[in-house]
Amino acid sequence: MAVYTEVGDEELEAFVAEYDLGPVLSCKGIAEGVENTNYLIHTSTGSYILTLYEKRVAEADLPFFLGLIEHLADNGILCPTPVHGKDGKALRRLCGRPAAIVTFLDGMWPRRIRTEHCAGLGTALARLHVAGQDFAMTRPNALTVDSWRPLLEASIPRAGEVQQGLSEILEKELGYLEENWPAGLPSGICHADLFPDNVFFIGDKLSGLIDFYFACNDFFAYDLAICLNAWCFERDRSFNVTKARAMLSSYRQVRPFSDAELVALPLLARGCALRFLLTRLYDWLNTPTGALVKPKDPLEYLTILQFHQAVAGPGAYGLE
Amino acid sequence: MAVYTEVGDEELEAFVAEYDLGPVLSCKGIAEGVENTNYLIHTSTGSYILTLYEKRVAEADLPFFLGLIEHLADNGILCPTPVHGKDGKALRRLCGRPAAIVTFLDGMWPRRIRTEHCAGLGTALARLHVAGQDFAMTRPNALTVDSWRPLLEASIPRAGEVQQGLSEILEKELGYLEENWPAGLPSGICHADLFPDNVFFIGDKLSGLIDFYFACNDFFAYDLAICLNAWCFERDRSFNVTKARAMLSSYRQVRPFSDAELVALPLLARGCALRFLLTRLYDWLNTPTGALVKPKDPLEYLTILQFHQAVAGPGAYGLE
Repeated sequence: MAVYTEVGDEELEAFVAEYDLGPVLSCKGIAEGVENTNYLIHTSTGSYILTLYEKRVAEADLPFFLGLIEHLADNGILCPTPVHGKDGKALRRLCGRPAAIVTFLDGMWPRRIRTEHCAGLGTALARLHVAGQDFAMTRPNALTVDSWRPLLEASIPRAGEVQQGLSEILEKELGYLEENWPAGLPSGICHADLFPDNVFFIGDKLSGLIDFYFACNDFFAYDLAICLNAWCFERDRSFNVTKARAMLSSYRQVRPFSDAELVALPLLARGCALRFLLTRLYDWLNTPTGALVKPKDPLEYLTILQFHQAVAGPGAYGLE
Repeated sequence: MAVYTEVGDEELEAFVAEYDLGPVLSCKGIAEGVENTNYLIHTSTGSYILTLYEKRVAEADLPFFLGLIEHLADNGILCPTPVHGKDGKALRRLCGRPAAIVTFLDGMWPRRIRTEHCAGLGTALARLHVAGQDFAMTRPNALTVDSWRPLLEASIPRAGEVQQGLSEILEKELGYLEENWPAGLPSGICHADLFPDNVFFIGDKLSGLIDFYFACNDFFAYDLAICLNAWCFERDRSFNVTKARAMLSSYRQVRPFSDAELVALPLLARGCALRFLLTRLYDWLNTPTGALVKPKDPLEYLTILQFHQAVAGPGAYGLE
């Protein structure tokens, strides 16, 4: 939620002149995305987002991310499309950073989630999974089960500062997940970070998915588990089964899931709860006080983890 | 440069429904203005700025500020115009704060000032002064000569931390200005904060003036002195007489100034240098480390003050 790199008017004009977008009419730094610097620009041909990629995004991954959203947009997914310059390139440099212009998407992310939002999300996620199937590039998930132990070890010495006994809970859960993590489930392109602030709606209608900077190849059901956790728990951390059912059944209408995926869902949901718990815990313990970006509460994901630990089977998510 | 108040999508939709602007299509918090929270919103009828007034703007002054920009816009000045709700009101409340929607202005503020910018600014400032003459409301300048002593006294004990001997320099200058401050110069509506980041251009053409939250009634020549200081000194703090001449002569073509104004200009320029030196010094000494908004260097204005102290007369500004 910050502008990390200031772009001057002359640098911007020279940069935009590399594209067929007409002259720049305005440029506002926007408070969106915690990883990059984003400007909303108006040119004579419309509105666009200019992104400068800051350190947290690996430059080597950018061709994958930009290629992916272009592929998805070409296949009917509502997501930003990279704009190519007159030289054909979508990725160039500005102010010493990799930078790209993408199309602007109307819509606002929902602060108060309603069941209709979850239904729309389920449909959009399934379409994304289907549309990604013929995308040629791949990127492994850098934040799946194999990567959790080093993350846990980095936080264990101070986990007790957040909650007493937390490190023992995490240690035990991680051991269980490492032993029981499934293999061979249907997999492909996942968004892997589809939280409400990355999904735009106009009224109840989904108008766009953004922020593909965690996208990777992994189990489709794992992506679904991320959404289940991010969209179906209320502010008081209770689980809303109506929302889950709406999301999962809308998903299933577009891309049916196998019995193996269904059975794995509670375990994957535990895994994804642990993944966000661990990254948030790390950020919580390592963000300097007074930093521009306030770290998110890791314990929100402990409640979610414990919910899934107690679940008897996928029926708890409202599925027959 | 920050979003201080988060507005939810539903609150925003309800708020915008009070206007005839059509449904909201998007809303982005923008990094603009240090005093207020600003959102750039798109609706089906166009682009607008939604401002939530934070503590630093006195609520009692808002009818003056909004009335003024409406009057100026009606009189051909390129500035935002308040949008009236269906109930006729331009000022209402959102998230517990006073809030207003104004029209969006295209353009970007110039990071590297060119002589053409200064010429455009001179013309625009003179037009503003003329257009303000039949505006019925008034607001005294809260940051003119009478208010400088309390500001100085608040900073004197620690001024030496910024530069040795600074408090003596300021004390002496303030005494001189209090004794010699002119009376009876042509006066009226002044912007009083027309720094480059409040002036938009598209190419070399001025496209808008923004941020009228210091506007007040004062000497026109004082407003001109503020611009002289803000636009005609280079980054190395040298004075660019070509820019000054361009600004002042463009101004004079729209609103000729009297001999009394011309003669007073060096003294007013000293006064306005002291005014920004004092407010910046106060902020410098009183901003907590790690604050969101970085305070500006007060000493920039010491150099400017010393330049005007050494000036023999208004001829130094390139005027015949």
